[in-house]
Amino acid sequence: MDYLHWFDLMGIAVFAISGTLAAWRKQMDGFGVLVLASVTAIGGGTLRDVILDVPVVWINDNSYFIAIFSAALLTILLLRKRLTIPNNTLQFFDAIGLAFFVIMGTQKALDLGTSNLVAVMMGTMSAVAGGMIRDVLCRDIPMVFRGELYAVTCIVGGVVYILALHAGASTLLAMVLGMTSLFSLRLAAIKWQLTIPVFGKHQADLGEP
Amino acid sequence: MDYLHWFDLMGIAVFAISGTLAAWRKQMDGFGVLVLASVTAIGGGTLRDVILDVPVVWINDNSYFIAIFSAALLTILLLRKRLTIPNNTLQFFDAIGLAFFVIMGTQKALDLGTSNLVAVMMGTMSAVAGGMIRDVLCRDIPMVFRGELYAVTCIVGGVVYILALHAGASTLLAMVLGMTSLFSLRLAAIKWQLTIPVFGKHQADLGEP
Amino acid sequence: MDYLHWFDLMGIAVFAISGTLAAWRKQMDGFGVLVLASVTAIGGGTLRDVILDVPVVWINDNSYFIAIFSAALLTILLLRKRLTIPNNTLQFFDAIGLAFFVIMGTQKALDLGTSNLVAVMMGTMSAVAGGMIRDVLCRDIPMVFRGELYAVTCIVGGVVYILALHAGASTLLAMVLGMTSLFSLRLAAIKWQLTIPVFGKHQADLGEP
Repeated sequence: MDYLHWFDLMGIAVFAISGTLAAWRKQMDGFGVLVLASVTAIGGGTLRDVILDVPVVWINDNSYFIAIFSAALLTILLLRKRLTIPNNTLQFFDAIGLAFFVIMGTQKALDLGTSNLVAVMMGTMSAVAGGMIRDVLCRDIPMVFRGELYAVTCIVGGVVYILALHAGASTLLAMVLGMTSLFSLRLAAIKWQLTIPVFGKHQADLGEP
Repeated sequence: MDYLHWFDLMGIAVFAISGTLAAWRKQMDGFGVLVLASVTAIGGGTLRDVILDVPVVWINDNSYFIAIFSAALLTILLLRKRLTIPNNTLQFFDAIGLAFFVIMGTQKALDLGTSNLVAVMMGTMSAVAGGMIRDVLCRDIPMVFRGELYAVTCIVGGVVYILALHAGASTLLAMVLGMTSLFSLRLAAIKWQLTIPVFGKHQADLGEP
Repeated sequence: MDYLHWFDLMGIAVFAISGTLAAWRKQMDGFGVLVLASVTAIGGGTLRDVILDVPVVWINDNSYFIAIFSAALLTILLLRKRLTIPNNTLQFFDAIGLAFFVIMGTQKALDLGTSNLVAVMMGTMSAVAGGMIRDVLCRDIPMVFRGELYAVTCIVGGVVYILALHAGASTLLAMVLGMTSLFSLRLAAIKWQLTIPVFGKHQADLGEP
């Protein structure tokens, strides 16, 4: 299904932009920009494919890197012109990419015969692990652990997708349901700044094994 | 051998508790807790299996995640009640988990025909890499590099196991010897605060290639 | 070609020295030294092999670890005697190791039928990813993102190698051309402190998706 590949590349490009902005904020060089853009865009999918022991998705398909490098270059050009991509525009497309990555990643795991639990984890990992590696390379604690309703929307989308399949929906319908619920929940989270509980506020002094 | 799986799950649960405590200390959200608990518990084994190119141990076995999520949930509930798991209790079970992970990891590598050296490294990696990833995600320098007699006990356990095999001991006897030596050395290290030399104290200003 | 393995081990040893110096600077213990020396030396190649889904190069060859541990031990002994390896000596051998890793990594990817783009990336990754993991474990932002002409020399070397192959040069000639261009560009970068643009100097306050 060719249009799926275009959704994929759009998500890749948006993630690459977020990696480029992180590298820019940390005043990295051109190589740092390319690495952070690539890692953010394909880090999660690579980790998923390595763990599932299937060929990594980009190994024989340069279109991923064309999307990543174009997005990074465009972003740098805009930034150097003191312009930037509006944050809400980015979040809107990021939510589309998120919806796409999660459902595709979940489906890929199910195709390989994993349990539903592992499939949802793989789908979520495809979507959030790249950003986690980006943050680690920037020496930040992963943004995704900070209470924003981001990863949870991935889990919800994956669960909806699998429930729909079990309810007998066609793969296509289940995909639409999963992506729509993920996408709308994510937009709602952005609009009303929904968060999930952050722990440890009053007990940051506990021992550890 | 079914009881082995129970040892495994016990180690997994203890490592998950240590990941949960780290996430709590860093005031992460519920997703951060799940990721840190999982990464600490199965990160080392996953890395080992990916490098040995065998299916990751949890891909078709949900019992690992049931153990991890229960341990994380229990820990959060205790912490919210201002209770905590006594540190020495945790260290005791951590030592059991350590002994189990190291010997099992070493055996798994030997089964795949690696050299003894690589087998001991794989066994040690199974046991310590998860905690290293946990610390990196928490933006800490890995605890295991800080002079405590932790990783060294893993190496000793693995070496004792392999020496016992070469001395003609049965796998079971060798396991018992390896686990016991690792476990007792670790307890001794905790009791008498044994450490290994920490370098660089007076020369933290050297150049690098 | 046996002499190739000696080049390989020389590069491994130099990278292990750089890992040892980093661990020393961060005042890590003996285990930290071994882990950082190993990760710096074989981290990039391991990542490359895992992504290409071929057996990791060191899994059945102890000579890598003999080189790593000897280099780490020697370095520690020198440091404890208040001696150190002259920085320009290290950089000279580091440049040789770099040239070797990049061309060998690129060739390995080409042998597996990847595109030229992916092959150059794999070659560069073999050479720089180990140092990136070293820096992450030391809680530093990877040095390779900081504007020094390091990773770029790897990309240039890989591109020259592939262009030479396409121009009909023999593998050996292409290797010599790729390695020489990489090596001389790297030495020039060190001598005249060539850098690549660092971004974000004036806009460190931008939003992100």
